Parts: sequence; structure tokens; C-alpha cells
Amino acid sequence: MDYQEILEDIYQAIQPYAKEGKQADYIPELAKVNPDQFGMCINTIYGETASVGAADTRFSIQSISKVLSLAMCLSIKGDSLWERIGKEPSGTAFNSLVQLEIEKGIPRNPFINAGAIVMADLLLTHLENPEDDFLRFVRAVAGNDTIDYNRDVAASERSCGYLNAAIANMLKYHKTIDNDIERVLQFYFLMCSIEMSCRELSLAFMAFANHRRKFDYAGIILTPSQVKRINAILQTCGFYDEAGEFAYLVGLPGKSGVGGGIAAIYPLQYAVAVWSPRLNSKGNSVMGIKALELLTSQTKESIF
Amino acid sequence: MDYQEILEDIYQAIQPYAKEGKQADYIPELAKVNPDQFGMCINTIYGETASVGAADTRFSIQSISKVLSLAMCLSIKGDSLWERIGKEPSGTAFNSLVQLEIEKGIPRNPFINAGAIVMADLLLTHLENPEDDFLRFVRAVAGNDTIDYNRDVAASERSCGYLNAAIANMLKYHKTIDNDIERVLQFYFLMCSIEMSCRELSLAFMAFANHRRKFDYAGIILTPSQVKRINAILQTCGFYDEAGEFAYLVGLPGKSGVGGGIAAIYPLQYAVAVWSPRLNSKGNSVMGIKALELLTSQTKESIF
Amino acid sequence: MDYQEILEDIYQAIQPYAKEGKQADYIPELAKVNPDQFGMCINTIYGETASVGAADTRFSIQSISKVLSLAMCLSIKGDSLWERIGKEPSGTAFNSLVQLEIEKGIPRNPFINAGAIVMADLLLTHLENPEDDFLRFVRAVAGNDTIDYNRDVAASERSCGYLNAAIANMLKYHKTIDNDIERVLQFYFLMCSIEMSCRELSLAFMAFANHRRKFDYAGIILTPSQVKRINAILQTCGFYDEAGEFAYLVGLPGKSGVGGGIAAIYPLQYAVAVWSPRLNSKGNSVMGIKALELLTSQTKESIF
Amino acid sequence: MDYQEILEDIYQAIQPYAKEGKQADYIPELAKVNPDQFGMCINTIYGETASVGAADTRFSIQSISKVLSLAMCLSIKGDSLWERIGKEPSGTAFNSLVQLEIEKGIPRNPFINAGAIVMADLLLTHLENPEDDFLRFVRAVAGNDTIDYNRDVAASERSCGYLNAAIANMLKYHKTIDNDIERVLQFYFLMCSIEMSCRELSLAFMAFANHRRKFDYAGIILTPSQVKRINAILQTCGFYDEAGEFAYLVGLPGKSGVGGGIAAIYPLQYAVAVWSPRLNSKGNSVMGIKALELLTSQTKESIF
Repeated sequence: MDYQEILEDIYQAIQPYAKEGKQADYIPELAKVNPDQFGMCINTIYGETASVGAADTRFSIQSISKVLSLAMCLSIKGDSLWERIGKEPSGTAFNSLVQLEIEKGIPRNPFINAGAIVMADLLLTHLENPEDDFLRFVRAVAGNDTIDYNRDVAASERSCGYLNAAIANMLKYHKTIDNDIERVLQFYFLMCSIEMSCRELSLAFMAFANHRRKFDYAGIILTPSQVKRINAILQTCGFYDEAGEFAYLVGLPGKSGVGGGIAAIYPLQYAVAVWSPRLNSKGNSVMGIKALELLTSQTKESIF
Repeated sequence: MDYQEILEDIYQAIQPYAKEGKQADYIPELAKVNPDQFGMCINTIYGETASVGAADTRFSIQSISKVLSLAMCLSIKGDSLWERIGKEPSGTAFNSLVQLEIEKGIPRNPFINAGAIVMADLLLTHLENPEDDFLRFVRAVAGNDTIDYNRDVAASERSCGYLNAAIANMLKYHKTIDNDIERVLQFYFLMCSIEMSCRELSLAFMAFANHRRKFDYAGIILTPSQVKRINAILQTCGFYDEAGEFAYLVGLPGKSGVGGGIAAIYPLQYAVAVWSPRLNSKGNSVMGIKALELLTSQTKESIF
Repeated sequence: MDYQEILEDIYQAIQPYAKEGKQADYIPELAKVNPDQFGMCINTIYGETASVGAADTRFSIQSISKVLSLAMCLSIKGDSLWERIGKEPSGTAFNSLVQLEIEKGIPRNPFINAGAIVMADLLLTHLENPEDDFLRFVRAVAGNDTIDYNRDVAASERSCGYLNAAIANMLKYHKTIDNDIERVLQFYFLMCSIEMSCRELSLAFMAFANHRRKFDYAGIILTPSQVKRINAILQTCGFYDEAGEFAYLVGLPGKSGVGGGIAAIYPLQYAVAVWSPRLNSKGNSVMGIKALELLTSQTKESIF
Repeated sequence: MDYQEILEDIYQAIQPYAKEGKQADYIPELAKVNPDQFGMCINTIYGETASVGAADTRFSIQSISKVLSLAMCLSIKGDSLWERIGKEPSGTAFNSLVQLEIEKGIPRNPFINAGAIVMADLLLTHLENPEDDFLRFVRAVAGNDTIDYNRDVAASERSCGYLNAAIANMLKYHKTIDNDIERVLQFYFLMCSIEMSCRELSLAFMAFANHRRKFDYAGIILTPSQVKRINAILQTCGFYDEAGEFAYLVGLPGKSGVGGGIAAIYPLQYAVAVWSPRLNSKGNSVMGIKALELLTSQTKESIF
């Protein structure tokens, strides 16, 4: 299979969707990104690589960072992590407080905001230098030491992050988080602010695509079974209330971010990342989802 | 891999769970089944087969029948099916009316009761002899002409099926179903009453495990893409509000029934069925889930 | 105070609202009523009476009948009635199933549909000839033997009453109703179908306005305290999710019906009935609420 | 009617309930109050007064302060207040976030916490010296210049007020509040921390009991109609999800606080305050509600 050819075909095929959707604009830093960009990069376990468009432009990975937080938390806490977070699809939007109230402060899964805020709290509790440790892990898993936080984006998100602050207070009320609310929020937003390119994301997700390779990055170690289970959670919970649609159309475990990025994997085959800032009404990249749908259709390769 | 040996190991390993859980007892027909039974059967695409326990004892497949209804509906309606039913995990119990009220009569997915009642309505509308046609399809896909409805079970379930009647009335109110409510309910319960053994179920699900083989049974035809998409929905929605847990523990698309059966598939590898009447608090077979968890752990084969 | 003069002033003052709102049209019988009608009648405990417009035209009292059912149930069951029905405002629409599911089949109060269906069930259980007995009570309390059911309206409502059927099935599931669902629904709709004029309604509600007079009609007996408590429930629950607004604007206990009628009382002063078929978005008569607001503003008499 | 005699009878009659319920203990300041206290004071518009027990002991009025905030807000904003707050009973607990999320940041009524937080925000916006102005108004309406905030209670409540902080953040997200979240919360808790005795509360509520007397205290002016409408809201919303029960048992507009106080009024007759720290499961004083129930039973005086 010539992945470069396939990616170029896809690149052509998605052009009609180039102006569909609207980029996130709730903070100036995200709003000032040129929305008319698209990048895609695939890496296979056989060592193949292919890319099109702005595959080397860095963007704000936002919620995709939650996969990396989960890897750290699972490494540190093991299955006791699930005492504080569920692993069921939420059936509601990513920032809903309703379920949190009804279920007494236990977030449905690690990928809704409430779940990721709990993970931020756990990392603050267990790591000596949480900010450094998380960044070192991300750099190690992506194999690139220039990856960094964007502190302006983080500060900007915090300044208008009222809904996440509401969630954090609710979690504190239910004793699901231990640390100071403000510190938890700042660390949460900082992790979301990491910037990576499609190429870097794709390489980082190779760690999840190949559970037969030892997962050990900057001291963060996962068993093959743990890697596979992260994929299972990605499959059922990676796309908020569009998880079913994504499974149906694309059929790969993956995770999207409000910056327009999506990372997905085909276990023991490949990892792929795609980026385009215009989002659909559910907050997922329009061209990104379309490109991944075409990828699994054309390669006839999905996990199902 | 020697599947017979693996199944025998599993059979031993699950014995400590033999008395956990409680069988469904809301109708006398289900309550009078001996709860202390267990059967399991696997069939691979290479032609291997293995089984343990009461693998040839028939039981009420109940909600597992919804996978077969979905195959028929998708074959008949194509993607227009999704105008009446969603494909997102529900995040709530299988029989909840809350979401149905909030989302104005569109069931979250085909595997919650509301979704299956809508499918029953569609089949009544589009088939000449719905009861015969459905049974003919089930017999064809399982390759066994002795499979049949249990009309006593169906009648008994109807007589106390108040919650499903509430759902059907709600759907009628929202104009999601077209036929007479009573007729829809009776056909819904009839489909649920089909009795099959683990061996028969496992063979029937081979049709979903191998999308490269032509799917054409008694005139019900699906494309490879449609088969894969049914698997995707099974993965995200097959276990009600335990879908995430099942994906995490087992990692296979599957469907459970309140009779204690579970059918699951590993695409392009195998289909497996397991049965044991004692259920956990979510309505899924205790020993069944445990056996499947051991299967994917020991074979190191899951889709993730 | 010259009530006739006040009513005539009100009649003038509400003319600008004559075309606002839309009459109920979910059944042909209600849709064919001329929507451009208005009637009002007041009766005081001093024996005064005044009326304007079509005060002697009968209309379908619909949910106003629930006050009369409540009187019967409270007379028969006493405080044990509240084991099956709450007495809190619902905060949701009159036909919502959400609360019923969450609160396991106990309706919030007797005036939402679920509560009234439970009352229908109780009357069926405790009365020898429920249909006759209820009608005899209504005729007695209104002092008019020509008042009757409209069986066409009742049959028509039943034929499309899917939401109420959903509610009744849900109640049956939770064992809150004892009788056959169909029988309960038919009796419920029959009670709603009673036709009365403003004058008749106003006279009937005098029984609730004057708790010092013996409440004993066709053998249905209430203590003064029970009469006052019915008023309390009317105040907090009589207008579905517009109960607060009505208390704020009008300040009287009252009950509305989808036929466009409203009955209200000022304890130890008067009972008033008003009718106009055009409804606001909450299902309450536009001109009716306006007229009552003017009545308590101009007389400076409200319970607060 | 000899109110002193009645109150003494009540005082005897409620003794069996002296150990029922549990005082609020979420902050040390409330927990260290001796729970075995009871006070009651009534003042009539004819100038009568009567009291029993610890009627002159001050306690934390907590949510009863919301009635005074509402008076100020209604005086300042008039009916435009209702653009930011509803006036319907909530049907849920006083601190629920569910409704706030569904109704996009508009609190159901001024007496749930979310509504009172919005009022705190409005007062901050419109008053020059909010803390002084509110206190001056309270002192004026109660006719007592020694009434004061308890800043320790306020600070203590803020320090663990996670749920209210969640609510405030949610309101800010929906743009229902304008000022800095922290400032709003501190002012909200400060208003709740006011300490008054039953005698003082009863005198303060005389302003609401007699709408014929000019309402003008420290420059806060209300029309008779506005006074009556505050009573209407008290009637439907003053007791959270026990508003119906209180209307049913007591039949007076009133407001409770988690400190164990309740103030209630009989328009054009009297105002009454009662206090006892032990609360029922809904957060209302056990002996307080019982005493008021007896008051309206024995005097045969309720608004219904």
C-alpha cells in the first residue's frame, strides 16, 4: 500500500469541505490561527511514513493531551485510577455538569473535562515536578525535545475557563480532587496548551499503536495490556458525544482536540494525525474526520 | 493456538464465580431456567471450533436478537435508518425514558430497547411476513432450520412489559413509529424470544466476524462496509451502560442478553458465544464476561 | 365593590389580547371550538354574582377536573393518598416522564398528568360505579344536574393519548397503579371531558372558597383543614411550570385546563371562573390569565 | 386570640420532637451552636407580640437573608430583575446545578443559591457600598442598629463553599453575573452570615406582612404590589423542594435557613419567626416547621 499516494488522494478529495465549520474562538490565541490549514501524517509499524499539507506546523493539541495524561496516570496508579474516574461513554457534551452532579463527583471517563481535571489533580499529588515531568514524558514519547507548553494559551484559557472552574469546584465538593482548585486548573490548562505538529503527534501515538513494543518513556511504563486498554477507552470515549459516529465512520480509536487536531491508531498497523482548525458542531475537525473516514475506506483497514 | 485447551482452562478458571449474580426473574419462563449452567463455543474463520459446558443447550437470546434486527434494517433501509435512530452510546440504562423525552423520540442507538422497538416497527412496515421473514433470516445466518421463537416467553414478556409499552407509546407520540403500538410490541418481544445455543450463536455471528465473505442470507444482503459498521456500533453500544467496561476488559465488539448470553467477535479471526444465566447489576452475565475477559487475555488477541 | 362593573372594565381591558395564543388542536373536538370566545363569572361568599361574555357557554374543563378528583380522593383516602402522590411543584411540563423515572413512579403532585392518572386508578379501586359516582359529585358540587361527560372528546383524546399511555405504563411498571391500564386511561380521559360553563365552574369552586361551610356533596365529605390544603396545593402546583408566574401575577390558588378554562378562588371571599380557548406556550389561557391579573390588581384583593 | 397562650401551648406540644434531626455541621461555626435550643416570636399588625423560649438569642439567618436581598433587588431593578432570574419553583434541591445547565444560566427563582448569587452580583453592580448598604437596610427594616454580619461565619463558609463556587462559575460562563466571581461569592456569604433573633426577624418580616404600610427602609422602597409579589414567591419557592409540603402543612409564605430559622407571614395579620437548629433531610428546622404547623392549626388562620 502506497500511503503517500493515498494521503494525496485524500487531500484532493477533502477540498470541497475546506470552508465548512468554524474554528474555536473562545480565546484570542485560538481565534488568530489561520483556519484554512490542513495537515496529515501517518507512520506505520513497518517504518513507513507519509504526509501531506501542513504536517509539520505545530498547533495546540488541547484535549489530545488527555491521552498522554491517562498514560501517566495509569502508569502511576494502575487500576486504582478507576476509583476516581469511570470508563463509560458519557452520552453528553464534554463539559456537562449534569452527570457529575447525579453521579456524585465521579467523572464518566478520563476524556471529558471533569475526568481530565481529576487526572491533573492526581499528577499534582504524585509527581515531584508535575510540569517538568509531564513535558519530559511528552517529549520522550514523541521523540522530540523542542515540544513545549504555550503558556499564553494556558493563561488565556484559564482566564475565561468558567465552566472548567465550575467542574473543578464540583469535584472538590465531592472530594474527588485533593489539591488546591486553582493549581489543578492551571496545570490542566497547561497540559492542554502543548503544541505539536501532525508528524510529532503521529510519532507519539505509535507508542499506543504497537503494544508489543516496550512502553517506557522518561520512566513512564505501561504493560501491553494497559496500552490496549487505553485504546479501548479511546474507542468508546474519545469523541465526546460523537464517539459512536466516529466509530461508525472511521472505525479507529482516536482523540480529537478543539484546536482541530485528531490522532488515531490502527493497532499493530499505524498511527495517524490530522489537523484542520474548522470544527463541526460537536467540536471535532470537519476535514480531519473526513480525511480519516477516507483513509479507512480506501485502505479497507479499520479495526472492525 | 489450541482453542479447545484455552476454553477448558477458562472453564476451570471461572468456577469461583459460579454463584455470583442473579438470573433474570421478571417472567416465570426466565426464572425457571437452572441458573447454574455455563456454555461457551468459539468458531474461527479458519474453520476451527471449540466448546465447553452446555454449548449446545438453547436459551433465550433476548437482546442479542437486536444485532440480527439491525442487520435486516440496515439491509432494507441503508443509511436512511439513521434518520430514526442514533448511533451514540446512551450513557444510561437500557430502558431509560429520560433521554427519549429530551431527544424528542429519537433513540440513542439500535441496541437500547427504544431503538430495537423502532427497528421492529420498520420491519413491520417493510416486510410482507415479518415474523416468517425474520425467522428465515436468523435460521439462514445460523445455518440451522430448527431455531425458533418461544411464543410463551414472548407472551409472558408482553404481559408485564410495562416499561417497553411506555417507551413504545412515547415513540408513537413523537411519530418515530408508524404501526399499531400493540403489534410493534408483540413483534419486538417475539424477536427477543428466539432460542439458540452457544454453538448456533457463534456460527451466526461468523457472518459479522468475516466481512470479506459475502453477507447474503435469505435475501438479506450487507456490504462489507455495513458489516464493519455493525461491529463499530456493537463496540460502542453493545453493553448498555457497561459498554466502556466491556471494551476495557474484553476489547471485542459484542452483545449481551438478559437470558445470560453474550456473543462477541474478533473481526477476521473468530466469533464466540457464551452463556450463563446469573447476571451482574448491569444485566450482563457474570461468568460470561469473565470468560471473555480471560479469552482475550490468554490469547492476547483483542481488537486493540 | 361592584363586581359587575369590575368585570366589564376587565372585559374591555383584555380586548387587545383577543388574538394572542392558539387554541389546543390535538384532537378535532377541541380544534373546532371557536377560539374567539371569552367568558367570566364570579361568585362571592356574600351571595354576589357577576359575569361577562360567554359565561354560560359550556366548554371542556379538562385538567380543572383534577381538583374535583383530588377532593374525592382526599375524602376517600385521607392523608394515605400521599403515599402514592407527592405534593411538590414539579418544575417541569405537565406531561414529563423524566421526573417519574427518577422518582420511581411517584408523581410529583396530583395536578400533573401522572398524578391525575394515579387518582383515576384510586377512584376505580374504591368506587362501586366510578363514572356515575364522579359525575354525581360534580353535579352536586356545582348544583346542576345537566352537567355531563362528552364521550366523543374522551374517546378522541384516548385515541391519540400516547404520552398519557406512556405515563400510565410507567406507573404500572412502578406498581403505583393497580387497575388495568386501559381502564385507568379511559376513566382519566372521561373525567377530563366534563363540560361546564364559567358560571357552573365558579359555583362549584365556591365549595373550596368557603372552608367554613360544610363540604358534603353526594357523600363526598372534606374537613375544613382538607379544603384549605387543597387550596395550598392549587397555589403551588395548579399551573404546571407557570405556577410561580401565576402566583406572582394573580396571587390566587387556581387551576387551568387545556380547553382554555381557569378556576380560581380567594378563600373566604369569592370563586371565579374564566374561559377563552387561546393558550400561551405553557398551555394556559392568555385572556384568562390576563383577566385574573386585572381582577386582583383592581380589587387589590389577593391572598398575599 | 391570646397569642402568648398559643405559643406556650405550642412550646409544650413540640417537646417530643426536641431531639429529631441534626444541625448543620459543614462549617465549625454552625456546628458549635447548641442544637437543643428553640425560640419563637410573633408580632401582629394590631401591635400584639408574644414569644417563647430563646426568642432573643441571635442565630445565623443564612438563606432567610435572601428575602431581604430580593426586596433590595426588586426596589432597584423593578421587573427587569426577572430577565436574570425566574420565579418558578425549582422542583430540585437548593444547590442543584442540573437545572442551571439545562436552562442556560438563568436560576429558577431568587431563593435557590444560584438565584441569590445573581442577586449578590446585581447589588454589587448597583450599590455604592454594597456591604454597608445591605446592612443599613436590614437594620432599618428590623428597627435595630446592633444587627451585624458575622465575618467568621462568612469566611468559613467561603472556604468550603465549593458548590456555590461551582454555581458562580457556571453563572459567569452563561454571563448571568457581571462582577468578579470571588467578590460575588464573598458578598453572598456575608449577607447569609447576618445574625438576628426571632424577635428581630419577626419585626423585620412585619414589613412584608403589611403591604398597606409604606415600605421605605434606608431608602429601599417597594410598592404594595411588589410586597405582595414577594410573598407570592415565598409561597411557591421559599422551602426548596419542600415548598409544597410547607404550603400544605402550614399554609403561609415563609423562608427557612440552614441555621435553623424560619420566618413566615400571614398577610395583614402577623409575622412570625421560629428557630431551632436541628434540621430535617430537606434542610428545614424540624421543630420550627412543627411549631408553625401547630400555629396555623390552632389559630385556624392560614392564607388558604
